[in-house]
Amino acid sequence: MAKQNSKAPVGNMIIGQSGGPTVVINQSLVGAILEAQKHTKVIKRIYGARHGVKGVMGQDFLDLSGESKANLRKVANTPSSALGSVRKKPTVDECKEMFKVLQAHNVRYFFYIGGNDSAETASIVHEVAQAEQYDLSVFHIPKTIDNDLMATDHCPGFGSAAKFVAQAFMGDDQDNRSLPGIKINIVMGRHAGFLTAAAALGRTAPDSGPHLVYLPEAAFDEQTFVEDVKKVYARLGRCLIAVSEGISDKNGEAIAAKFSKEVDSHGNVQLSGTGALGDYLAGLVTKAFAPEKIRVRADTFGYLQRSFAGVASKVDREEARKVGKLAVQAAVEGLASGTISIVRKKGREYKVSYLVNPLSAVAKHTTRVPPKFINKEGNNVTKAFVDYALPLIDGLPEIGFLKGKPVKKIQIK
Amino acid sequence: MAKQNSKAPVGNMIIGQSGGPTVVINQSLVGAILEAQKHTKVIKRIYGARHGVKGVMGQDFLDLSGESKANLRKVANTPSSALGSVRKKPTVDECKEMFKVLQAHNVRYFFYIGGNDSAETASIVHEVAQAEQYDLSVFHIPKTIDNDLMATDHCPGFGSAAKFVAQAFMGDDQDNRSLPGIKINIVMGRHAGFLTAAAALGRTAPDSGPHLVYLPEAAFDEQTFVEDVKKVYARLGRCLIAVSEGISDKNGEAIAAKFSKEVDSHGNVQLSGTGALGDYLAGLVTKAFAPEKIRVRADTFGYLQRSFAGVASKVDREEARKVGKLAVQAAVEGLASGTISIVRKKGREYKVSYLVNPLSAVAKHTTRVPPKFINKEGNNVTKAFVDYALPLIDGLPEIGFLKGKPVKKIQIK
Repeated sequence: MAKQNSKAPVGNMIIGQSGGPTVVINQSLVGAILEAQKHTKVIKRIYGARHGVKGVMGQDFLDLSGESKANLRKVANTPSSALGSVRKKPTVDECKEMFKVLQAHNVRYFFYIGGNDSAETASIVHEVAQAEQYDLSVFHIPKTIDNDLMATDHCPGFGSAAKFVAQAFMGDDQDNRSLPGIKINIVMGRHAGFLTAAAALGRTAPDSGPHLVYLPEAAFDEQTFVEDVKKVYARLGRCLIAVSEGISDKNGEAIAAKFSKEVDSHGNVQLSGTGALGDYLAGLVTKAFAPEKIRVRADTFGYLQRSFAGVASKVDREEARKVGKLAVQAAVEGLASGTISIVRKKGREYKVSYLVNPLSAVAKHTTRVPPKFINKEGNNVTKAFVDYALPLIDGLPEIGFLKGKPVKKIQIK
Repeated sequence: MAKQNSKAPVGNMIIGQSGGPTVVINQSLVGAILEAQKHTKVIKRIYGARHGVKGVMGQDFLDLSGESKANLRKVANTPSSALGSVRKKPTVDECKEMFKVLQAHNVRYFFYIGGNDSAETASIVHEVAQAEQYDLSVFHIPKTIDNDLMATDHCPGFGSAAKFVAQAFMGDDQDNRSLPGIKINIVMGRHAGFLTAAAALGRTAPDSGPHLVYLPEAAFDEQTFVEDVKKVYARLGRCLIAVSEGISDKNGEAIAAKFSKEVDSHGNVQLSGTGALGDYLAGLVTKAFAPEKIRVRADTFGYLQRSFAGVASKVDREEARKVGKLAVQAAVEGLASGTISIVRKKGREYKVSYLVNPLSAVAKHTTRVPPKFINKEGNNVTKAFVDYALPLIDGLPEIGFLKGKPVKKIQIK
């Protein structure tokens, strides 16, 4: 796919991490470092850029050439970006500046772990190098809890975040059975609802929650929402609801935009790190049931979804490690650029293969939850989604229910 | 301690669960059921009351006499109250009503798993039975994530919730290193700050967060808070903060009372299930830094702390199982009433023994974080707290940091 360099260039390597961290993003970092350490003939020094492109521009590098296997094993299991991350998407001029730094440090291998913006950055840097006729291998290594990258079956980072969300809903469904009421949980996902949809993976019984699931891909109508909740509550005496932080009305305006004024450098409204959307929806429900007083609560899962220490999917860990390793392998084999995609093999058993795709396959655009994964009412996910996502979280805790029969009531004097 | 019945009475048993669930409250339930199943000569049928005292009054019982060991094992590992819980504290008249139900069902053993209110309920029911000269063994089995019960070194349920909070902060500290800013996490605990203090257990390096810890036991002053945050931010360029939902000003008024109008049947203001306190504190910090724009985020951990499936402390699971078992053992040995307390043995290694205390030792009053566990500025916990709490969560995930040295900068042409 990617163009071949005449041969693998000889020089130094830089690797960086970008965007919202995941609990397995360091697996990819470590996979790349361990592989690079094997190729000392072509990769002379292994540098880590602190806080991604910011570190490249500021020459803020750590020399990781001598990191021990034992320490890297610990780092790999540590949530969030060990090199530090950054929310910055550099301009073309900044990419030129970055290129000058890479050139000055005799960098011939540049690996950038991130989402579609990172792939775009990698692509621009690669073009600048080509224009300067400087041999530079540039690889994007995919990560995102949002699972919204193109050209890959799923993204490293998603499985572990999905596992966290599924376990959270599993437990919260038991909590909601125990003290019945209406419970709204806000899950991350600005444009893609995959992570919110993962709430459904923890269902263990026919009456298990989440009973309603709202994704950014289906237009959110406040009146319909309230009616949906009332129906479930009438049937079960309780209702557990998964709501994506990015739910939007039929005009595409984010519901959360009503409360949040803060905007990041991408022009995105702040959605996480605030409980406003959950509190707003809880208020709608409380008002709709009035004067009847119902126990309504809202939790916003927040940053725990992407950084919680100690909950990671084994499949996700292994795949994240692998994409890091494969990116370095492809580069030392002489490929000039690319991104590593995951391809799911056909068949009942979950198996994947990996593919080098061009950077352009991932850069710029993102994907969303396809219609086949959403029910026609737009308030739940389909079995097809569960079949797709369940192998990625590789197992959930076992849940048990008491089986005792009701005891006959006695007339009390 | 507790009065001796003439001998162990013969009849049926009822067990119920009350208050906010924990992830190990079913361990206590299962511990009691498994022990009761061994004593068929005195305990004829084992009934579970659905939703605690509400189920007793409404004769909503499940017959658990024949629950299999295999199913009970699953139930024990399931978060939240398998029998359903209740927030109701019955009046004396309702306790008399409950007694009539127990009598009608020839119940001779009543076990109530809960906090101090549950111990009080148990105590009143026992007094009613005594006044009626009816042999009834009444035992309280302790549980609470708040760790605020008297007469026990710590409470079953706390260790697992503390483990969740510690792991959350471990990961969030890595997240906050990766994308620096000010992060506020609101932790459960209305009057007792033990669970918030547990945030400190996940510190792995000298600069690890939480850098500031605010408990309900130390008067919260908004101005001092903002100054504390500014100091940490000036030093580290970031700040991770643990705040108890129950923080109160010097007059004892809860800060959250400013936003919440909802009050439960105990007269308590709603603190959990809303992000208002976090958002308010984030607003204070944002304003204090203005016009400098700082990344400020707030997460409210909410119900995940008490119900998350898959994170439980082994020590906590075992102790929760044990207090359930011991309550039944004490009852069939002829003790008329009591609560099971945990006593920590002296010595470096963590070891406990168990004690039957009178119900009055736990009923009505609660305990709080003692001064020796809080620093004199009231914005952090002491090493004494860490020494106390660390054995209860039995281990945390390993965290690793890259050890690479900075690379020398080059003059770029």
